[in-house]
Amino acid sequence: MFESAEIGHSIDKDHYEAELPALREALLEAQYELKQQGRFPVIILINGIEGAGKGETVKLLNEWMDPRLIEVRTFDQQSDEELAHPPAWRYWRHLPAKGRMGIFFGNWYSQMIQDRVHGLFKDPRLDQAIEAAQRLEQMLCDEGALIFKFWFHLSKPQMKRRLKHLEKDPLHSWRISPLDWQQSKTYDKFVRYGERVLRRTSRDFAPWYVIEGVDPHYRSLMVGRILLESLQAALEEKPATPSQAHAAPLIAAADSRNLLDSLDMTQALEKTDYKEQLATEQARLSGLMRDKRFHRHSVVAVFEGNDAAGKGGAIRRVAAALDPRQYTIVPIAAPSQDELAQPYLWRFWRQIPGRGQFTVFDRSWYGRVLVERVEGFCTPADWLRAYGEINDFEEQLCDAGVIVVKFWLAIDPDTQLERFQAREKIPFKRYKITDDDWRNRDKWPQYREAVGDMVDRTSSEFAPWTLVEANDKHFARVKVLRTLNDAIEKAFARDKKKG
Amino acid sequence: MFESAEIGHSIDKDHYEAELPALREALLEAQYELKQQGRFPVIILINGIEGAGKGETVKLLNEWMDPRLIEVRTFDQQSDEELAHPPAWRYWRHLPAKGRMGIFFGNWYSQMIQDRVHGLFKDPRLDQAIEAAQRLEQMLCDEGALIFKFWFHLSKPQMKRRLKHLEKDPLHSWRISPLDWQQSKTYDKFVRYGERVLRRTSRDFAPWYVIEGVDPHYRSLMVGRILLESLQAALEEKPATPSQAHAAPLIAAADSRNLLDSLDMTQALEKTDYKEQLATEQARLSGLMRDKRFHRHSVVAVFEGNDAAGKGGAIRRVAAALDPRQYTIVPIAAPSQDELAQPYLWRFWRQIPGRGQFTVFDRSWYGRVLVERVEGFCTPADWLRAYGEINDFEEQLCDAGVIVVKFWLAIDPDTQLERFQAREKIPFKRYKITDDDWRNRDKWPQYREAVGDMVDRTSSEFAPWTLVEANDKHFARVKVLRTLNDAIEKAFARDKKKG
Repeated sequence: MFESAEIGHSIDKDHYEAELPALREALLEAQYELKQQGRFPVIILINGIEGAGKGETVKLLNEWMDPRLIEVRTFDQQSDEELAHPPAWRYWRHLPAKGRMGIFFGNWYSQMIQDRVHGLFKDPRLDQAIEAAQRLEQMLCDEGALIFKFWFHLSKPQMKRRLKHLEKDPLHSWRISPLDWQQSKTYDKFVRYGERVLRRTSRDFAPWYVIEGVDPHYRSLMVGRILLESLQAALEEKPATPSQAHAAPLIAAADSRNLLDSLDMTQALEKTDYKEQLATEQARLSGLMRDKRFHRHSVVAVFEGNDAAGKGGAIRRVAAALDPRQYTIVPIAAPSQDELAQPYLWRFWRQIPGRGQFTVFDRSWYGRVLVERVEGFCTPADWLRAYGEINDFEEQLCDAGVIVVKFWLAIDPDTQLERFQAREKIPFKRYKITDDDWRNRDKWPQYREAVGDMVDRTSSEFAPWTLVEANDKHFARVKVLRTLNDAIEKAFARDKKKG
Repeated sequence: MFESAEIGHSIDKDHYEAELPALREALLEAQYELKQQGRFPVIILINGIEGAGKGETVKLLNEWMDPRLIEVRTFDQQSDEELAHPPAWRYWRHLPAKGRMGIFFGNWYSQMIQDRVHGLFKDPRLDQAIEAAQRLEQMLCDEGALIFKFWFHLSKPQMKRRLKHLEKDPLHSWRISPLDWQQSKTYDKFVRYGERVLRRTSRDFAPWYVIEGVDPHYRSLMVGRILLESLQAALEEKPATPSQAHAAPLIAAADSRNLLDSLDMTQALEKTDYKEQLATEQARLSGLMRDKRFHRHSVVAVFEGNDAAGKGGAIRRVAAALDPRQYTIVPIAAPSQDELAQPYLWRFWRQIPGRGQFTVFDRSWYGRVLVERVEGFCTPADWLRAYGEINDFEEQLCDAGVIVVKFWLAIDPDTQLERFQAREKIPFKRYKITDDDWRNRDKWPQYREAVGDMVDRTSSEFAPWTLVEANDKHFARVKVLRTLNDAIEKAFARDKKKG
């Protein structure tokens, strides 16, 4: 894998200086075109051997191009806010927007290779990390990102010479690497695990480029040319003709029976039972939230449902059991400009709670496979791949201790009609009913189908859907609270099992 | 100040329950109207004596109103990211957007009172903090915010009874207050300093409401009524008829001579001198940035100037001296929707560097007193008050160790014309010249006046303006770098003096 990067590539100064001006001008032009088009971001990952010119190359790229359109991020030390969130959160919060470039030093690859070299885990865990990185990159590419992965390489003798040289350089000595490169063993391990990582994550949509780092002219020209060619190619592609679905289209059940048909919509609770059970479940939730064991967790509660199914009322009954300093309610509406300049899941990642916190999403990332699917706001390819992206996303949350609970509040069409009509009569509820609501109602069958597919494809062991029969509001609210409580207790029980 | 809040106010249960439904409904309606109008945010500050019902009241407000439109923030412990920024940064990052409500627990007032009670500083510093709070609130109000400040009060005997009662309550015991309220002295001090704070910060635009906290019915109804009445009044105000200027209009000098006329625009640097001096200053900057003393500081470098004055080129020469992992360049364009829903300075606060970092603003908050003034994008009242707001903002940065360096790159009209024409000929520079640039050129005299006023009113000892004669690009770049270096060295020297 690294063979051709140990043969002593070099370019002489004259050749370098002859080629450079045209290269720089073309890069700059491509960069402005990127900004002008504003169609996709560029993400550049920098990895490799200590002393192979990583820092120098990034510095050079900033000189060659317009640094106002480039963000350089280092991810070596994690802040305490980052430590309180799932590991990928820190990368999401620093993704470059469409039209811009982000250079990621110390990215997910450096992290996994370092941890493996330090012996924090063994190969199976390394492979999991590799798998996760690939899914992340696949998603970013599907969202349009252009990803470059550079591995700066040196053979062991080359590295030793280089480090000796750098020792004397005061400009370099202040940098602290998390690995002790003076040890011969470090190099061997780093290259071994690096090779494993490169082999498994070099894909058509985001290949690795291994650059021999000994000669500055050579490595700089190589990186410049690679960037330029791929960037120009990407800029010339026709602005996304609606792409073909990656997955086979979904086929409705032949007997047209749907998951939602299996609900017993007559379930209801008498007022006195309701009051009693509500109070019990609220007290239970309140207690669980004050439990020490909750310090290791957080809750993400997703509320989806038919219009007028009572999401707001259910959310308020949940909120009433919580300390206001502990929870946040995130209402999801149409995305803002900043949000449109990022991958679909970005705006939800931003809102993921830190440990000890409780976040309610009033509508959520499932908009993609519900309203966006039904209204045609995105292509079938987009919403079809969303199922997998969402499962990945939720799995990452769960792995980090987030308890994910998802509700679909279901009512039947007659109940909805009654509620719409009632709302139109009460002055301060009129805000709650819009023309959109009536239009959505006309698409009942399409939504019904979308809900069925959504539950089938995204109800996972770690983040199951709960269908809530919501013709009776009392019944629905108690079921929501009880489900939440059960989920939190289950998470506590799992902790105990793990020790 | 607290006399009427120690007389044992109370409301009986029947009265409370009779009034409540109408109050809740009206509050909810006002809240939806707030969202609908989207004209201003509501900020509610919660302060006062331990045990006086602060937490309970906030919980209640969340029950009464739609919690999806309310954000509750606690500011007790600072995260390490917050500690690396100026103190106000944490408040700015959590301001509610227009149309929403933010409840701030443990806000700037709790901080300053606690620090004073703990003896971290004496009255002069307390007064500075009070003054700063007032300026912040004034600015928020000028930007349209509706601010409520509630002080929940108990007399000392009332408090002692209450704490005894709470001790037995498991729902309360887990909360940790940073003050030891069991001590009689704590109460006395807290009330004494609280009184000082309330007296000085109760202003027409943001008055304090002192609420006796003994009786839950009384305190809840009071808070509800106060919120409702002020909110309704604010919602009924006519959407901002362009308000009158707060300050007298600016008058141009009678001899029409302007600061910019005093520049010697013929200054220039020969190519060899330029190369030598540039290299020297870049090396100097590079060294200063690696200096240990820089760990206590950060740099904010502001670049403003005529179109085509060479801001981009100067910024690139600065960037070339820095480690790409240490700096960020923030290009400022028209604000996004999210940014428009916040006070003017919000989007700049977001980008303020943490300690050890260097941020370049390519255009900046001065847009308000330049392009927005000249083009009439805001009212004279808005840009006239901006001078003071900006001075406050920069003073806060400097107090926190940020080195603020501001450049106006000046060229004369002939030089600009030459550069515009040259740009139109070079393909990859065509992006840099737009119709706007030609239009701005027609407004040369207005911009000239605006620049003069800007420098006069915002060049401060802690953040002076540097006018850069930029007809000769070489001269300008070296002057920029030298000024930056001098400013950083000056900051180091001040540290030494302070010890």
